[in-house]
Amino acid sequence: MGIVVQKYGGSSVADAESIKRVARRIVETKKAGNQVVVVVSAMGDTTDDLIDLANQVSPLPPARELDMLLTAGERISMAVLAMAIHDLGHEARSFTGSQAGVITDAEHGRAKIIDVTPGRIEEALAAGAIAIVAGFQGVSQTTKDITTLGRGGSDTTAVALAVALKADVCEIYSDVDGFFNADPRIEPRARKVPRISYEETLEMAAQGAKILHLRCVEYARRYDMPIHVRSSFSDKEGTWVTSADKVGTDDSQESTMEAAIITGVAHDRSQAKVTIVGVPDKPGEAAAIFRAVADAQINIDMIVQNVSAAATSLTDISFTLPRGEGQTAMTALSRLQDSVGFAGLLYDDSVGKVSIVGAGMSSSPGISARFFEALSDAGVNIEMISTSEIRVSVVVAETQVEDAVRAAHAAFDLGSDEVEAVVYGGTGR
Amino acid sequence: MGIVVQKYGGSSVADAESIKRVARRIVETKKAGNQVVVVVSAMGDTTDDLIDLANQVSPLPPARELDMLLTAGERISMAVLAMAIHDLGHEARSFTGSQAGVITDAEHGRAKIIDVTPGRIEEALAAGAIAIVAGFQGVSQTTKDITTLGRGGSDTTAVALAVALKADVCEIYSDVDGFFNADPRIEPRARKVPRISYEETLEMAAQGAKILHLRCVEYARRYDMPIHVRSSFSDKEGTWVTSADKVGTDDSQESTMEAAIITGVAHDRSQAKVTIVGVPDKPGEAAAIFRAVADAQINIDMIVQNVSAAATSLTDISFTLPRGEGQTAMTALSRLQDSVGFAGLLYDDSVGKVSIVGAGMSSSPGISARFFEALSDAGVNIEMISTSEIRVSVVVAETQVEDAVRAAHAAFDLGSDEVEAVVYGGTGR
Repeated sequence: MGIVVQKYGGSSVADAESIKRVARRIVETKKAGNQVVVVVSAMGDTTDDLIDLANQVSPLPPARELDMLLTAGERISMAVLAMAIHDLGHEARSFTGSQAGVITDAEHGRAKIIDVTPGRIEEALAAGAIAIVAGFQGVSQTTKDITTLGRGGSDTTAVALAVALKADVCEIYSDVDGFFNADPRIEPRARKVPRISYEETLEMAAQGAKILHLRCVEYARRYDMPIHVRSSFSDKEGTWVTSADKVGTDDSQESTMEAAIITGVAHDRSQAKVTIVGVPDKPGEAAAIFRAVADAQINIDMIVQNVSAAATSLTDISFTLPRGEGQTAMTALSRLQDSVGFAGLLYDDSVGKVSIVGAGMSSSPGISARFFEALSDAGVNIEMISTSEIRVSVVVAETQVEDAVRAAHAAFDLGSDEVEAVVYGGTGR
Repeated sequence: MGIVVQKYGGSSVADAESIKRVARRIVETKKAGNQVVVVVSAMGDTTDDLIDLANQVSPLPPARELDMLLTAGERISMAVLAMAIHDLGHEARSFTGSQAGVITDAEHGRAKIIDVTPGRIEEALAAGAIAIVAGFQGVSQTTKDITTLGRGGSDTTAVALAVALKADVCEIYSDVDGFFNADPRIEPRARKVPRISYEETLEMAAQGAKILHLRCVEYARRYDMPIHVRSSFSDKEGTWVTSADKVGTDDSQESTMEAAIITGVAHDRSQAKVTIVGVPDKPGEAAAIFRAVADAQINIDMIVQNVSAAATSLTDISFTLPRGEGQTAMTALSRLQDSVGFAGLLYDDSVGKVSIVGAGMSSSPGISARFFEALSDAGVNIEMISTSEIRVSVVVAETQVEDAVRAAHAAFDLGSDEVEAVVYGGTGR
């Protein structure tokens, strides 16, 4: 009898009716002959409501207490889900992160999992019960305080438990059918991808596709735990995220996807572009600039330095960063203007990033050229370019993001004849 | 430096503003030179809301999961209270019942405290922090599952922690100024009692006065922990509940209260009266009747058996019980009618119980007589009588309860000249 770990996000357990629906699905999995462990997020808007409450008493609540507060959210959803399963005639026992053996460091609000010791979960499974575990939380190894794992924490809890329990699969449920090779709201012919490698998933996620959090995919890749991303609203197969050697090994008709050069098109409208104009082209200048940015705790993404004009020995350096950090970065850089001696700073938050990702491209020459030609034919102007082994990204004007996504999708034959009626969305925390 | 344990009920922490007010009071106690441990209930209606949610998925939720769910309530209030204290510039750390070392048996929903091992609380105090503890909850010694303590659980948590920490006092805060010698809504001249013994408090509570839960008073009496019942809305002294030898030992003008023969008048409108008519007056009949009632899990209160009429050798037996259990009791007794051979059953839920309580009465003859005369003068008809060492209770028609309370209050000179503008109410769970 295999072990299946299932994770349900906040939108899947938003109210009593949703919880009952999820309970029926869990019971079906159990009746199909599996031992079932369920990781659950807080119901719907609970987390936001709790944060609002905290802010009513304190503008900057202490992190330890904020973690204590927020973990009440999963405590509610997991207990109610256990009740709903019980009401269907099956035994279910809920466990906090601490009880489930999710041991973390002491970094409140963004704790890292150090160890998973799921003895109580194994006992519950051995007794024939379904185990329900609070996602997103653990207990500090050193202080014994309750911690939360931060963004992607529930997905990561599910994968970590699946690894510790040697589960067959970690199923991540949300309100979408799986991973699509482009945003169906932009490109109606976007297709569901049946299988994708950990590496491609990481690139897609890093390039703005709301598929799975990087952190959970990294954990799964490290321990080679297959993830099945699927919808809690249907029984359809979703997308399997596995090691690259397993992608395309199934016999389904869709396995022809394996031959596709690129897996999907990702886009990201959350970034802004900073350009430092007229930087003296001599050693140490770029280092001084990026040291200042790093000291201001700014997460930069793409960096492009143009070849300097020979006549002036001046160059322009551009980088992208999250829009929310633009003001901080501009302030930090302004302070450097005299010492570094650059001519000026430009800030543009009307940009978007469009990327093509696929393991196939490293062995297929001309992919970048085909991408850029497609953009050019669609009248899209490229502002910055960055590439990796399995990805090509461009920065374009925000108004041209949708045109760029559709052009790339068409250029690489990613379309299906059938229009998928789904929402391209993300998993919860 | 002394340790003060304070308990705040749900109405004292109903919203963000109330929590901030409570935080200020806690900080004042700390600044006055005390080490402070605070036990807190769930905010306002949180517990009821959580029970509603549970009932939406399951008509009879499993007790283990209901406990897991309900404990989310205190988790929220304690974390937010710690944040509010933090915002005032003082360190506060919140602890679940389990973290605070509240060890219980495994009876979910009505667990009993077996042990209190407050090592983490002592560490927090030693570090100069204020410790905030979730009331109403603990962890099972055997199953390690989260438990709730049931009615009066938060008050009991506070007293148990005060005992384990060797605190100077356990302060129980609610929205009333203390304990009054009659319900001020019925008798406007009711006076606040400055001191009362554990035993009198137990009698008053058992007779329907909503002062403190029996369980918490019993715990305090066993370990001689003084309780100070007071309002979170004022700085006034409330009512001290102490051992009998300490009642009346203070020097305040109010200590003359010690000389009062009776401490207060309690009343209870929650009961009904069952009368079994025409019971054969021979050995074993009463035993059969009360065995049937006990087997039906009915909590009976007063029992009165009249002398049998010599001519018939038949007697009537009456008892009182909570109204909610009336139907069950009548059904259980009906089944006995043939075997016991009584003539009939009467049920009356339009009754009320009025009691006078006071340690002084055992050494003062004529108390009962004065009480009954006062009732008679007020036109109140007595239906049943029951007495203990420090209490006399009567059952009267429900419509005459208020007249009876006022008559008793006047007969024993309990009135003050000043009318107290307070609500006679209860503490939370």
